[in-house]
Amino acid sequence: MAEKMKIIPLGGLNEIGKNMTVYEFGGEIIVVDCGMAFPGDDLYGIDLVIPDVSYLIKNRSRIRGLFLTHGHEDHIGAIPYVLKQVNMPIYCTRLTAGLVKLKLEEHGLIKSTKLITVEAGETVRAGKFNVEFIHVNHSIADSVAFAIHTHMGTVVHTGDFKIDSTPIDGEVIDLARLGELGKEGVLALCADSTNVERPGFTMSEKAVGHTFKRLFAGCDQRIIVTTFASNVHRVQQVIDAAAENGRKVAVTGRSMENIMKVSTELGYMKVPKNTLMDIAKIKSLPKNKQVIVTTGSQGEEMSALYRMAFSTHKQIDVGPGDKVIISASAIPGNEKTVSRVVNELFRKGVEVCYNRSDMLHVSGHACQEELKIIHALTRPRFFVPLHGEQRMLQIHSRLAQDMGIEPTHVAIAENGSIIELTTKTMKLNGSVPSGEVFVDGSGVGDVGAVVLRDRKRLAEDGMVVVVLPVSAQNGALLSPPEIITRGFIYVKESESLMAELQNVAMEAAESGSRKRRDDGELRGTVKSAVSNYLFKTTKRSPMVIPVVTRL
Amino acid sequence: MAEKMKIIPLGGLNEIGKNMTVYEFGGEIIVVDCGMAFPGDDLYGIDLVIPDVSYLIKNRSRIRGLFLTHGHEDHIGAIPYVLKQVNMPIYCTRLTAGLVKLKLEEHGLIKSTKLITVEAGETVRAGKFNVEFIHVNHSIADSVAFAIHTHMGTVVHTGDFKIDSTPIDGEVIDLARLGELGKEGVLALCADSTNVERPGFTMSEKAVGHTFKRLFAGCDQRIIVTTFASNVHRVQQVIDAAAENGRKVAVTGRSMENIMKVSTELGYMKVPKNTLMDIAKIKSLPKNKQVIVTTGSQGEEMSALYRMAFSTHKQIDVGPGDKVIISASAIPGNEKTVSRVVNELFRKGVEVCYNRSDMLHVSGHACQEELKIIHALTRPRFFVPLHGEQRMLQIHSRLAQDMGIEPTHVAIAENGSIIELTTKTMKLNGSVPSGEVFVDGSGVGDVGAVVLRDRKRLAEDGMVVVVLPVSAQNGALLSPPEIITRGFIYVKESESLMAELQNVAMEAAESGSRKRRDDGELRGTVKSAVSNYLFKTTKRSPMVIPVVTRL
Ligand SMILES: [Zn+2]
Ligand SMILES: [Zn+2]
Ligand SMILES: [Zn+2]
Ligand SMILES: [Zn+2]
Repeated sequence: MAEKMKIIPLGGLNEIGKNMTVYEFGGEIIVVDCGMAFPGDDLYGIDLVIPDVSYLIKNRSRIRGLFLTHGHEDHIGAIPYVLKQVNMPIYCTRLTAGLVKLKLEEHGLIKSTKLITVEAGETVRAGKFNVEFIHVNHSIADSVAFAIHTHMGTVVHTGDFKIDSTPIDGEVIDLARLGELGKEGVLALCADSTNVERPGFTMSEKAVGHTFKRLFAGCDQRIIVTTFASNVHRVQQVIDAAAENGRKVAVTGRSMENIMKVSTELGYMKVPKNTLMDIAKIKSLPKNKQVIVTTGSQGEEMSALYRMAFSTHKQIDVGPGDKVIISASAIPGNEKTVSRVVNELFRKGVEVCYNRSDMLHVSGHACQEELKIIHALTRPRFFVPLHGEQRMLQIHSRLAQDMGIEPTHVAIAENGSIIELTTKTMKLNGSVPSGEVFVDGSGVGDVGAVVLRDRKRLAEDGMVVVVLPVSAQNGALLSPPEIITRGFIYVKESESLMAELQNVAMEAAESGSRKRRDDGELRGTVKSAVSNYLFKTTKRSPMVIPVVTRL
Repeated sequence: MAEKMKIIPLGGLNEIGKNMTVYEFGGEIIVVDCGMAFPGDDLYGIDLVIPDVSYLIKNRSRIRGLFLTHGHEDHIGAIPYVLKQVNMPIYCTRLTAGLVKLKLEEHGLIKSTKLITVEAGETVRAGKFNVEFIHVNHSIADSVAFAIHTHMGTVVHTGDFKIDSTPIDGEVIDLARLGELGKEGVLALCADSTNVERPGFTMSEKAVGHTFKRLFAGCDQRIIVTTFASNVHRVQQVIDAAAENGRKVAVTGRSMENIMKVSTELGYMKVPKNTLMDIAKIKSLPKNKQVIVTTGSQGEEMSALYRMAFSTHKQIDVGPGDKVIISASAIPGNEKTVSRVVNELFRKGVEVCYNRSDMLHVSGHACQEELKIIHALTRPRFFVPLHGEQRMLQIHSRLAQDMGIEPTHVAIAENGSIIELTTKTMKLNGSVPSGEVFVDGSGVGDVGAVVLRDRKRLAEDGMVVVVLPVSAQNGALLSPPEIITRGFIYVKESESLMAELQNVAMEAAESGSRKRRDDGELRGTVKSAVSNYLFKTTKRSPMVIPVVTRL
C-alpha cells in the first residue's frame, strides 16, 4: 500500500480565527498552531472560542510536538486550554516563545510545559517529521512558515505572511528558500487566504512609518497613537518618529505594556536611550514633547484609549491640543465601537487621524500578487487553502488553478476534514470531531447550545418566574402564585399586567383535576397559560419558569 | 424684543437614524420628519427606537403639521407610534405618501390621519410657516428639501440629498431654486452631514446602471439582484437591463414586493410590458431568461436572499448557474451578516458579485464637493449640521467655515437642544426632553434602562433561581432549597456544582438568627452567599434570584 500523509485542519477554515492544523504521517502527529477565536454576537457571554481537540486527546501518545508560526492570538490563544488537556512540547521562535510564556505563567503551566526556541533557518526533528523554520513577513515580528519534510515529501505551511521588501527588521521573507524547495519538489502547499480577495500587493509596513514622520513633523500637539499591541514593528516606528522629533514615549494599556516588555527584553524593539518614560511622568513635559502609545485601536470598552475618550483614564485627560492617530483598521464587527470612540474624541476637541486613505495602517497578509509569487516559487503538486472564510478559500483555489494546479489537486476542506495525500493523489476522506469549544469565565466547554439558546431567549425578552406553593396532600394552591420578572417589563409601571398575570397563573394552576396531576403537568399547564397571555398582550415571549413547591 | 425662531432637533444628531426636527416661530410649530432608528447591539430584544416626543405632546395644540422629506425609514419609521400620541396632518410627496399609507394601514391609523400630497415646486401654508417643497436627488425617488419661509426669514432644510447630474427620473436637484433662495437671503441652512467625511462627489446612480448592463450582457446564468427595497431607481435600472437583454423579472421579499407595488401604481416605476412575472412561474424559463430582484442586501436573517443562501426559500434554489449581484454596501454593523450570506452562496457554487471596486452601489448622500455647492448657492447666515454622528457634525461645521461662515454662526447641537435664532444671532438656549424610546413587541416605552441592564446580565451569564420554602412561624426551611438555572451552565454535566450550590444556599438560609429575619434579609443573605460561591468556582456572575415562600 502507498504511504499516506494526512492533513487535518481543526480550525481556521470557514472562519477567521482558532487556527490549528494536524499533520499525520507514519503513525505520528505534529500540530501547527493552536489559536483562539473571538465569539460572534450570537455567543452571548462567551469569552473566547477554542478548537475541539478531542482527536488530539484520543491520539496523545502519537503527538510529537506543537509548532507555532507566530504570536498572534488566533495562532497561540488556545494554548493554555489545550495544554491542560494534551501536553505537547512547543517549538517556536523567540518572540513567539516570549508571548506564549506570559500565557503559561498566567495559567500556572510553566513547569509542566516544554517550550523550545528555534530560529528561522533551523530544522527540528520531531519523530518522522523534520520541520524547517522559514522567515516570513507579517504584522508581528519573528513569524515563520514551515517546510514539513517527511520521506514521502515536503509540505509548505505558510502561516500568516506577506511579502515586504522593506520590512522594519531588515529581513525580507525568505523567498530564496521557498524557491529552492520548489525546485527540490513540494508535495503540498497550505497557505494563508486572508487577503486573497484583494488584487495587487499589500503595502510595506514602512509606508506607515512615513505617515508617522509626516504627522509628527512640526506638530505642536501631544500625539497619541493606538495600534494592535502585537505589532512590534509598528510601535518601533512610532518610537523612531518620536525620537527623531525629540519626543518622549509612554505606553498605556495592559497588553501594550506586556508586549513592550517582552519585545524589548528579547531585543525585538530598539528603544533609543532616554526615550521611554513612565506614563505618570510624561505629563509634566510640554505637549509637543509627548507621545503616548495605547491599546484600544478596535474601540474595546476597557482599553486605555476608550477610557481616555470617556474620561475614565486615570492618568490621561484628552482635549484640544491632542492628536490621536488610529493606526489600525476596524476588524469586521468592530466598526461601531471604533466609531463610538472617534466620535467621543471629536466631542472633546481632539484631532483624530482615522481615515483609510491616509495610509495609517497596512495589512499583514498577502494579496493576490504575493500569493501568486508563493505559488510560482513553491510549485506544489497539491494545494490546500487555509486561514479563510468559504469565499476566500474558493477564490484562493481559483488563483491556484490560474497558476497551473489541476482542480482535482486542490482541497477545499472543512474543519475536521481528513485530507489524505499519497505522492500521486489527494482526497477528502472522512473527518474527525471538530468544532467550537466555548470558554466562559473559568469554564471550558461547560456552556453549549442549550445554555446559549436560553441566554439568547433571556436577552431578547427576559423571564418570568411563577412560584406555585401547592399542598403535597391534595395539590391545592397554598397561596396565590408569586410572580418575579427580570428583563421583561418595568414592573412598577405595569401593575395591572402583573395582577392579571397572577390571575392567569392561579386559574391555570387550579384548573382541571388537580389531585392526579404531577409537578411536570402543573408546570406545563401554567407555563403555556402564562406564555400565551403574555404574547397576546405584549407580543413578547419571555422565558416562563414555573416553580412548584410541594409542602 | 426681537422676533425669535427655534430649531429643536429631536433626533438625528450624534446618531444615524430617527431624524426629527422641530421648527418653532410665533408660537406655532411644524415638524420635519419622524424617523426610527435600528437598535444597537446593546439594546437587547428591542425592535426599534423612536424619538422621545414629550415636547410635542405637551405642545400639541401649537403644531401645524408634519413635513416629510422622503420615504426612508429613518425619516418616516416612527410615524405610527408618534401619531398615536400626537395627531398631526402630514404633508409629503406622492411616493412618500404611498409608503406612509402602508404604515398607517398596518397600524389602523388611516381614518384618523390627514395625509396631504404635495409636489416639488409647491408651497404649503401651515400657520405662520410657508413650506416650499424643492426637488432633490437621493437614493429614493420623490425626495425633497424644504425652504421654510417665515416673515423672520427663510430656513433651508435639505433633508437627505446628493447632486446627481444624470438621475434616473431625469430630474436634477433644483439647484436653480436653491440659488435663487440664496440671492433672496437664507437665514439658516440645516443640512445632511452623512458623507461629509468623503472628499469629492458621489457617483451618479446611472453608474450602477452601466454595471448592470455590463454584467447582464452575454451572461448565460440566472441573475439575482439584491438592493435596498426603497431604491426605486435602482430596481428600475435592473428592470431596464433585464428588458434590454430579453429577460423577465420576478420580485421576492415582502418589503420589495410592497414598494414595487406602490411605486408602479404611482408611476415611479416604468415596467416594460410583459417583463414582470410571478416568482412561481419564472422558474419554467431558461436560466438566462430570468432576473430575480430580492431583499436581503444586508444579510438580514429573514430576508429572501438569506433564505436562498441557506436553502429555506420556498421558490428559489440557488447553485451553479446563478449569479448574485449585491447592489448595496453593508451598513456599519452589518458586515458580518452580509459576509455570512456571501460565504454560503459561494459554498453553493453561486457566482457572487460583491466587490466594492465594481461600482455595484453608489451612495445617496452628498460628499464634500456637493455640500460646498449647496453652501455656496444658499449662502446662509447661520448653519446647523444635521443627520450625522459627532465627527460628521464637526467636520461639516469646518466645511461651512471654509465656505465663509463665522464659527459663532454654526451650531453643533444635541438632540433636544434649543437653537434660538434672531435675524442677527444664533445661540444654544437650553433644551427640551429628548432621547430614545424603545419599541419592543407591542410595547412602546415600557422597556427602559433597568430592564435592559437585566437583559444584558441574563444574556452574559444566565440566571439561578433559589426557592426557599420557610415556615411562617419560625422561619425554618421547610425543605431543601430548589435550584433552577437557565443560561448558566449545562446542569446535567454539573451535578456536583449543583449539589454544592444547594448546600451553600441551605447554610446561608439557616445561618444567624432566623426568627427575627424578614424576607428581604433572608433573600440578601442567600443571594450573596450563592453569588460569591458561583463567582469563586466559575468566574461568572449569573443573576441570582432567591424566592422566599412563607407557609
Ligand atoms: Zn497573524
Ligand atoms: Zn492569523
Ligand atoms: Zn434617506
Ligand atoms: Zn436619512
